Amino acid sequence: MVLPDQAARAAARNRHDQLTKPRGSLGRLEALGVQLAGIAGVSPPPIPEPAAVAVFAGDHGALVEGVSPWPVEVTAQMVANFCNGGAAINVMARHVGATVVVVDVGVASELVPRPGLVRAKVRAGTANLAIEPAMTVGEALACLDVGAQVAADLVARGCACLVTGDMGIANTTPSAALLAAFTGHPARAVTGRGTGIDDEAWARKVTVVERALARTELTAREPLAGESLDQELAGGPLAGGPLAVLASVGGLEIAALAGFIVGGAAARVPVLVDGAIATAAAVVADALAPGCVGYCLAGHRSSEPGATIGLAHLGLEPLLDLELRLGEGTGACLAVPIVQAAAKLLSEMATFDSAGVADKRV
Amino acid sequence: MVLPDQAARAAARNRHDQLTKPRGSLGRLEALGVQLAGIAGVSPPPIPEPAAVAVFAGDHGALVEGVSPWPVEVTAQMVANFCNGGAAINVMARHVGATVVVVDVGVASELVPRPGLVRAKVRAGTANLAIEPAMTVGEALACLDVGAQVAADLVARGCACLVTGDMGIANTTPSAALLAAFTGHPARAVTGRGTGIDDEAWARKVTVVERALARTELTAREPLAGESLDQELAGGPLAGGPLAVLASVGGLEIAALAGFIVGGAAARVPVLVDGAIATAAAVVADALAPGCVGYCLAGHRSSEPGATIGLAHLGLEPLLDLELRLGEGTGACLAVPIVQAAAKLLSEMATFDSAGVADKRV
Repeated sequence: MVLPDQAARAAARNRHDQLTKPRGSLGRLEALGVQLAGIAGVSPPPIPEPAAVAVFAGDHGALVEGVSPWPVEVTAQMVANFCNGGAAINVMARHVGATVVVVDVGVASELVPRPGLVRAKVRAGTANLAIEPAMTVGEALACLDVGAQVAADLVARGCACLVTGDMGIANTTPSAALLAAFTGHPARAVTGRGTGIDDEAWARKVTVVERALARTELTAREPLAGESLDQELAGGPLAGGPLAVLASVGGLEIAALAGFIVGGAAARVPVLVDGAIATAAAVVADALAPGCVGYCLAGHRSSEPGATIGLAHLGLEPLLDLELRLGEGTGACLAVPIVQAAAKLLSEMATFDSAGVADKRV
Repeated sequence: MVLPDQAARAAARNRHDQLTKPRGSLGRLEALGVQLAGIAGVSPPPIPEPAAVAVFAGDHGALVEGVSPWPVEVTAQMVANFCNGGAAINVMARHVGATVVVVDVGVASELVPRPGLVRAKVRAGTANLAIEPAMTVGEALACLDVGAQVAADLVARGCACLVTGDMGIANTTPSAALLAAFTGHPARAVTGRGTGIDDEAWARKVTVVERALARTELTAREPLAGESLDQELAGGPLAGGPLAVLASVGGLEIAALAGFIVGGAAARVPVLVDGAIATAAAVVADALAPGCVGYCLAGHRSSEPGATIGLAHLGLEPLLDLELRLGEGTGACLAVPIVQAAAKLLSEMATFDSAGVADKRV
């Protein structure tokens, strides 16, 4: 992964100090402008517009364990809602001028073709990760490819800011398992209430995550198909390597999201990471392609506890903290205008010289 | 002050529970939508667009005490920058589709007429509040009128969301004094670094605020012109009443901002409150017209400590916390898309019934 451009970052930092405002007074918008310059390799950076939201959808075998109060059909029903423009992410995306593409990478049922729906099903839902690998390594790779291709296609169509979205009933369970596996935090620390479960269901969910992790630790020392010894070593404490862990405890849409993030970074566009699911995907992405986190911006701090742990692991500080816990890309989409404003400030503000404004007395 | 409509609030809350998402999963955007419905008196609320930013400008006699490293000329120079569209607030406002009006209510120098500049100077800068009242009660009333009139004019021109802006070298000093006077916190707790001062200048600034408060406490028990006994009693511990305190330790642009906030509330439009200066003005506004805080939304948590104290006093939680400390209305302007999104979600999202999405199992 090519790292963000240091010269462009320095130029943006220098330019901020010439603009008509006390130095540093735009706070995190200044750091954001510097990051955007580094990502684009030029200062001032281009305005990251239009944005595009890719909502990856998949189902989860672990639902049979009672980890969510929602029926499996809701994933497909919400995909239809996305295609019809009626979901929260559609409202948000229209509001910020972003396109929405919906990608079926793993919905349990067969979906009819619709405008706005990319049909790229790798498998009709994962296996139950509490008892067996959620998918094969080959399936995980196929999902990564789908995500990377969607990112490349959107950038080729002129999208200059990618937003991660997800839909999958029960998908906070594999996200928690991935966050535990990659950050080393215990299951109970990364497992949250998802869309709203009671204490009993939460305890069950923690157990499911623990079972998935225990099973993965047992098998991870066996190299799996598609893995090299280098990958195993790169995986650090996870002898199976990040790909094997992803296959064992992940989700189809989460794997695709990881590929989407890597693809966005490879195309050198900013990738706005949404909540708990996307944060788990970003952790996987940065393990698979170290350095891609430099192209990531955290849109919103999900109220899922794992999200905060994952963001800290990646060294990302979210732009918004509005207690959203919906997913779909809503939190990240809401941050799009902030990211665009940070770029515009560097391009459009007058300098002390150009505006004839006196500088601070030394 | 007519309070926000409870029936519209209840209707918005009920509507949120029908929309295709887990209940409560849009977090603070749901509460925001409910507040907007209460403000407009209808659910779903109208989209609060377009927004308008009013930047009130004034100078401060306390600058001679060495409370800011910037020369007084910068206020007028920045007013020119605002009129030319080169300041941060102009970039932000264009980005969110908002108009900017600049109001000279107290700049020290004479300003030439320019498009976008409202010339409503009440006085050419305040007196030095460390040694005498910043302005007379009559001048404070005139500033309040200017602000209220600007709000009424903008609403009459179709603006549906008002954003507070300010410009005035040294204006964090009167803001700190007002916040101390109205919240009871000591000078050192509410006094910050403004645009960036060292320890020595900060200590001097605290002393200036303390001198202003000491002088005000001594004189405040004498009723001032334009005050009634009711006002004195309403002022609680400040026997001089809010208007007398505003005149004694305030600023011309801060008084105008207080009038602007009252005017926006009276017109039943949401008023987005910016940082430390605007928060001080909102505290004054709610003391003068109790209940107008119900029409206020805090856009951004300024890094000035007084802002946090003022917001807590008002019971407002800011939407953004991005370490901005610029003023001009930048923090609040950046929150405009969030406020508009909250309204659009209530209008545009599908319901479980309309989208054919199954609800959570009970």
